[in-house]
Amino acid sequence: MTGTTLDDYTDRYARRVRGMTASEIRALFAVASRPEVVSLAGGAPYIAALPLDAVGEMLGRLGSEHGATTLQYGIGQGLPELRERICEVMALSGIDASCGASPEDVVVTVGGQQALDLVARLFLDPGDVVLAEGPTYVGALGVFQAAQAQVVHVPMDEDGLIPEALEAAVADCARAGRRVKFLYTIPTYQNPAGVTLSEERRERVLDICERAGLLVIEDDPYGRLGFESEAPKPLRARRREGVFYLSTFSKTFAPGLRVGWILAPHAVRDKLVIASEAQILCPSGYAQAAVSTYLGTMPWRQQLKVYQEVYRERRDALLDALADLMPEGTTWTRPKGGLFVWATLPEGLDSKAMVPRAIAARVAYVPGTGFYADGTGGGHMRLNFSFPSPERIREGVRRLAGVMEQEIAMRRVFGQVSRPGRRGQAGADAPGPDLA
Amino acid sequence: MTGTTLDDYTDRYARRVRGMTASEIRALFAVASRPEVVSLAGGAPYIAALPLDAVGEMLGRLGSEHGATTLQYGIGQGLPELRERICEVMALSGIDASCGASPEDVVVTVGGQQALDLVARLFLDPGDVVLAEGPTYVGALGVFQAAQAQVVHVPMDEDGLIPEALEAAVADCARAGRRVKFLYTIPTYQNPAGVTLSEERRERVLDICERAGLLVIEDDPYGRLGFESEAPKPLRARRREGVFYLSTFSKTFAPGLRVGWILAPHAVRDKLVIASEAQILCPSGYAQAAVSTYLGTMPWRQQLKVYQEVYRERRDALLDALADLMPEGTTWTRPKGGLFVWATLPEGLDSKAMVPRAIAARVAYVPGTGFYADGTGGGHMRLNFSFPSPERIREGVRRLAGVMEQEIAMRRVFGQVSRPGRRGQAGADAPGPDLA
Repeated sequence: MTGTTLDDYTDRYARRVRGMTASEIRALFAVASRPEVVSLAGGAPYIAALPLDAVGEMLGRLGSEHGATTLQYGIGQGLPELRERICEVMALSGIDASCGASPEDVVVTVGGQQALDLVARLFLDPGDVVLAEGPTYVGALGVFQAAQAQVVHVPMDEDGLIPEALEAAVADCARAGRRVKFLYTIPTYQNPAGVTLSEERRERVLDICERAGLLVIEDDPYGRLGFESEAPKPLRARRREGVFYLSTFSKTFAPGLRVGWILAPHAVRDKLVIASEAQILCPSGYAQAAVSTYLGTMPWRQQLKVYQEVYRERRDALLDALADLMPEGTTWTRPKGGLFVWATLPEGLDSKAMVPRAIAARVAYVPGTGFYADGTGGGHMRLNFSFPSPERIREGVRRLAGVMEQEIAMRRVFGQVSRPGRRGQAGADAPGPDLA
Repeated sequence: MTGTTLDDYTDRYARRVRGMTASEIRALFAVASRPEVVSLAGGAPYIAALPLDAVGEMLGRLGSEHGATTLQYGIGQGLPELRERICEVMALSGIDASCGASPEDVVVTVGGQQALDLVARLFLDPGDVVLAEGPTYVGALGVFQAAQAQVVHVPMDEDGLIPEALEAAVADCARAGRRVKFLYTIPTYQNPAGVTLSEERRERVLDICERAGLLVIEDDPYGRLGFESEAPKPLRARRREGVFYLSTFSKTFAPGLRVGWILAPHAVRDKLVIASEAQILCPSGYAQAAVSTYLGTMPWRQQLKVYQEVYRERRDALLDALADLMPEGTTWTRPKGGLFVWATLPEGLDSKAMVPRAIAARVAYVPGTGFYADGTGGGHMRLNFSFPSPERIREGVRRLAGVMEQEIAMRRVFGQVSRPGRRGQAGADAPGPDLA
């Protein structure tokens, strides 16, 4: 063992993060946070819509009156009173006692991210395949990469995941002898695509997974942020078995507290708790008390409506601006909830290559490549509408449209602007959805 | 893939936690928390010693005046201002700019547990060996088990880890062709043994690890909680390279906020951040602001002295009670800081088998078996003195002594009471330390 250096260690051994490089999105956020930049890049809720005085008062009392408990160690599964209230929140979406939801099977996590990481830790071995929508949540890609799993993307259209494509992916993997562990899906107000899996497809997707013996990891951070007709019931409300339901208070209350949860099949609930204890010992008792007290003493249902109103107005501002200002050939989704619009650029434009020019024009977005494990998606971009004001959104789209017009003009003058990497190859973008 | 059930999944695939069962300590804490039980089992700080009114007021303002920032998403590495203040805290122990400590290389974590889990995630592959003191922190055993690593315990005496034993363990592993990744050590006021690695041994341990090409994971949750002469400088203050320094605010401020940190070698700092982002996205911005504001505006050095005074008084109460009440043949360590005393029972007594009778007598402790990966340690127990009052400590020891006297009497009547499992085999407890 003589002579091993730290570099040897990281080079030779750190397999789990060997492939990891600082995410494009992290680097992007650093510049996007400059005040002169209109950021359509983030995924932040509009916290200022909260009654911060009342929240602050509540947080203060949790320290001064209950500090001896709230500031002390908690338990790995999470506070019983919070788990009760989480069941009330889930009941809003139709996940209730009638489908076997119980505080006993809720595991409180450090936001939705730890929820997903725990499930991955429990089930994934290196080389396993995870099926996921294409595009999908960038943080999920980080989890699956850390677990050394392979992501096979399943395309969507305006009604969400395409069941036939899911069946084909399952069959392809079976033929290739690849071991598929689960389907990871964000069925409602998807990040980044903004689409929602239709009522009818929900049953079909569940049936396909059941037949294939696949677990379903249902990630639902946005389901309670719908602006229009009620969202179809979550997958977990339709099946007791085989569905892990993941959610978070990051979008409906406050991401800075880092409180999320898993509703797990009873058989694995304890394994998740043990895995969580090995990772973080216990979630913050103070943050849990804050969420629990918020749900127990403050008008959280009304606050949901406030968020829904704010986001509907901002989505409308974004859709209007896109319709008014985007160059011909650009298309985009029309989300009925959540935080994001997914835009498809005119043929030949490359959203990743365009980032520096967009930043120079003081507007930021996330290029579509961030949402595919295979680096495709350069023809798309994600636009956030939850954080910037309607006026800023319109100004951002104006700047973005200017950059795109310039790109198109350059392309006319100098001929086809090729996209770097895979995008340059014909057909390499094929797994990408036609979401327009 | 047809017909796979959830049970198949957990049975066949969930290798990482396959061996995990709910920890003895967790089950024990559930009964130990009943008010009629004197618990010497926990590891909780005495939060009531904090100025909770002032802390509550500070927490309230962080919500009402700064909520738009503190309740929002943060960044993976942690708030820059908190990382600056963490460097001030480390400087107290001699880890400062002169040995290359910089806020740039601090990664904020969800308590000390996530710090250790991240290091394990970065470096450990299944089958790897970790060297650790015997006994060692139970939460570390959980991390290494989840990583499917093997723990080889290195014995201690009253001056901490025995360098000759460390050399022998390194040589044994080399001969057996086992891949050792690092030494995990709690050199100061060790949990559970209460001993401190002497000044002279610190250099020797570092030299041995350097020669063997081993990283050192230095876990230091208690180093700032010394009651007597100053503790020897941390290992990280002696070597820039090859030492990961882990600590937490759980013992010096409040565990309920779950804020810890890693001071990492610069070369791997980014990998740790990426691994943490995959696990939790970012640590709680609110909790970080709370710790940062506490360190920036409240008399935290004075509060350390308050904790030190409270714990010295309680340690003295425990040591006095043990001297006055314990049956002959019992020995124990005399910690100069931290939260724990490690007691060695008279020959023939089994701390694990005795737990139910102790609980019946309304006293709780953690049996020594919890601190060994191999189930040895039945001749020992860990006693906590940070949480119960001096009066409760004495009453707890009185009850415990009664249980032990009864065991000894039973043993006289019925002959040798054999310890179950490995303890019953001659020499099986040999890796255990003679810490008395």
